[in-house]
Amino acid sequence: MPRTSIPANLKLGFLGAGQLARMSSLEAFRFGIQVAVFSDRTENEPVQFMTPYSTSGSFDSVDDMVKFAKECDVITLENEFISSDILKKVQEKSGTPIYPSPESFALIENKLIEKQTFEAAGIPVTPYKLVRNESDLEQFGEDHGWPYMLKSSKGGYDGYGNETVNNMEEAQEAFSNLGGDKGQDILAEAFVDFTKELAVQVARNETGTVVYPCCETVQKDHICVAVLSPAPVENIVREMAQELAVKATEAIDGKGIFAYEFFLTKEGSLILNESAPRPHNSGHYTIEGTVASQFENHVRAVLGLPLGSSRLNKPAVAMINLLGTHKRPAETDHIKEALAEENGHLHVYGKVDSKVGRKMAHYTLLGDDLEETHQRAIELTKSIEI
Amino acid sequence: MPRTSIPANLKLGFLGAGQLARMSSLEAFRFGIQVAVFSDRTENEPVQFMTPYSTSGSFDSVDDMVKFAKECDVITLENEFISSDILKKVQEKSGTPIYPSPESFALIENKLIEKQTFEAAGIPVTPYKLVRNESDLEQFGEDHGWPYMLKSSKGGYDGYGNETVNNMEEAQEAFSNLGGDKGQDILAEAFVDFTKELAVQVARNETGTVVYPCCETVQKDHICVAVLSPAPVENIVREMAQELAVKATEAIDGKGIFAYEFFLTKEGSLILNESAPRPHNSGHYTIEGTVASQFENHVRAVLGLPLGSSRLNKPAVAMINLLGTHKRPAETDHIKEALAEENGHLHVYGKVDSKVGRKMAHYTLLGDDLEETHQRAIELTKSIEI
Repeated sequence: MPRTSIPANLKLGFLGAGQLARMSSLEAFRFGIQVAVFSDRTENEPVQFMTPYSTSGSFDSVDDMVKFAKECDVITLENEFISSDILKKVQEKSGTPIYPSPESFALIENKLIEKQTFEAAGIPVTPYKLVRNESDLEQFGEDHGWPYMLKSSKGGYDGYGNETVNNMEEAQEAFSNLGGDKGQDILAEAFVDFTKELAVQVARNETGTVVYPCCETVQKDHICVAVLSPAPVENIVREMAQELAVKATEAIDGKGIFAYEFFLTKEGSLILNESAPRPHNSGHYTIEGTVASQFENHVRAVLGLPLGSSRLNKPAVAMINLLGTHKRPAETDHIKEALAEENGHLHVYGKVDSKVGRKMAHYTLLGDDLEETHQRAIELTKSIEI
Repeated sequence: MPRTSIPANLKLGFLGAGQLARMSSLEAFRFGIQVAVFSDRTENEPVQFMTPYSTSGSFDSVDDMVKFAKECDVITLENEFISSDILKKVQEKSGTPIYPSPESFALIENKLIEKQTFEAAGIPVTPYKLVRNESDLEQFGEDHGWPYMLKSSKGGYDGYGNETVNNMEEAQEAFSNLGGDKGQDILAEAFVDFTKELAVQVARNETGTVVYPCCETVQKDHICVAVLSPAPVENIVREMAQELAVKATEAIDGKGIFAYEFFLTKEGSLILNESAPRPHNSGHYTIEGTVASQFENHVRAVLGLPLGSSRLNKPAVAMINLLGTHKRPAETDHIKEALAEENGHLHVYGKVDSKVGRKMAHYTLLGDDLEETHQRAIELTKSIEI
């Protein structure tokens, strides 16, 4: 049922307390909605500094989460760490709806089922195969060439749970590392010879569907260092990516905010690489870059409110991920230039400890020319240490 | 000293926990800054839902506030309820700086001193006189005509502490009501025959000064119902208002965000009516209306960070105050149209109880034509009940 009013004390519960839940919480507060947070850590989580309603427990414990969920009106996710089975039980026992629904999540939490789901919907996915033994590993290399990727079908986040293998020896070692020996389903995935990685966010609920512009995610060592929007590719490619993203969201009957990452091949075709049932790093630029951000539409979508507009506020937006540069108590240092730039916007996640490569903050710059805006954003942030 | 880094655990303390502190807190969170709040109420204050660091006590108790201030790195204000003498003691005893400084606040907390301060800086103020007895009351009427205003020199907020008097009988009654018999300083103020009421916000700290566009505050029964920016008056009038607002901020050596309300007379001159050392209702439109809002610059200014830009994002901005329509548990109802409008932005303050006329929420609409945008904002919000 669409919601047309916001009662006082309406409480949105987040399973997970990191920067994604934090940025969504800011939008919940804007609408006068209260925020409660459940984490597997007891303190110093980014959202724990932002609410008196903080609970900790295990992501494996239905009981822990049922108790939490009963205090909330709606529950939502910020990660993929909780299995759909557990989410389903939490929903049933607490009576509190969870969005995205456990049913939607069940279609993407397992990489094998995810690929089957999207293939069935006519969405191109990376060539893959479930590999069970040495012979499968060898066969995949013969069929698709070396190197290829091995991925654990469950879990995986920011490159964890994935390994690139160059030969049989590495394949066997990775298979074992990823838990293939212990009954974990392992997928082999062919390398796609891509020219760019693109991403699209989609917000969807009973009031409608909103698709964000197609952006480019710039990666370095498998970590996203920047996002450029709109992606510097042909119009028709962006439109195709948006179309596939909407189709994918419909295929899982998604209610919430979803992100899809695509490979753009040399031949100009798109292959869906990953999906996420939550706000995504590729959409941080939407906070200032679009009329309503992915975080605002996350909140609107899961609460059944009409969705906000994904229209770009400026012709070009560049977002730079500010990763930890030191292992130390966090301190976002040398920010004078970044803050003094008229069209720049700094976001710091409130993490207490920094470590090299950890996502600590980001910086968004709006402009008219994409390449210029990207270069300027790099300039403005290059002295920042965290 | 300008600040060029944000350490983890940097904590900004607010004295006051209403919607102004709430909207500033959202900007503090964006920068990874923690928020603590001190209120004279123990629960259900808008900011109390947004932080685990909530303290209650008396605004008259130095000790209560010293204890609170010691837990914070910087203290700021959201109201004028605490005397500068008490603020000075809190600052001295806690060692925590308060911005705007008690010294700045001392120059505007008392309406008589405020007028003297601004007059000395060459800023036109409403004709006024300290009235001590019947003869003064009569003399003021003779000199400036009836009706005129009587104002308590301390306190006063949203029309409280002010009375309009039409004759000697009313003047004597109001004088007594406002505490004139009990030694309270009472000011008589002449009515200014104005055509519009204008407002300007100024952010200022050791890194510089940023002045916001001059806007119009549309009043109904002495309550602000809408704000239009830029004010639909001659360019030169807007510029003069900005110039006076900067001059006023310099006159009190202000560090923080300040708001100034002006009367525009029939003759086209400007008279300073009121000042506030905090974010102000007249500046709520800046959240989406300008690059950096009054709340963001509030946080930046008091922390010594470089200030953000006050440039308008669109040629026309209208903000509608959404006042309580019922005495009931708060519920922001019939918001579908407002939320579905692409360029509209709803903000709900998280108050638990509504009452008729209470400031509960606001709605900002961006557009190209001011009058059209104002009319459309009225249309989109007219069905909202709270």
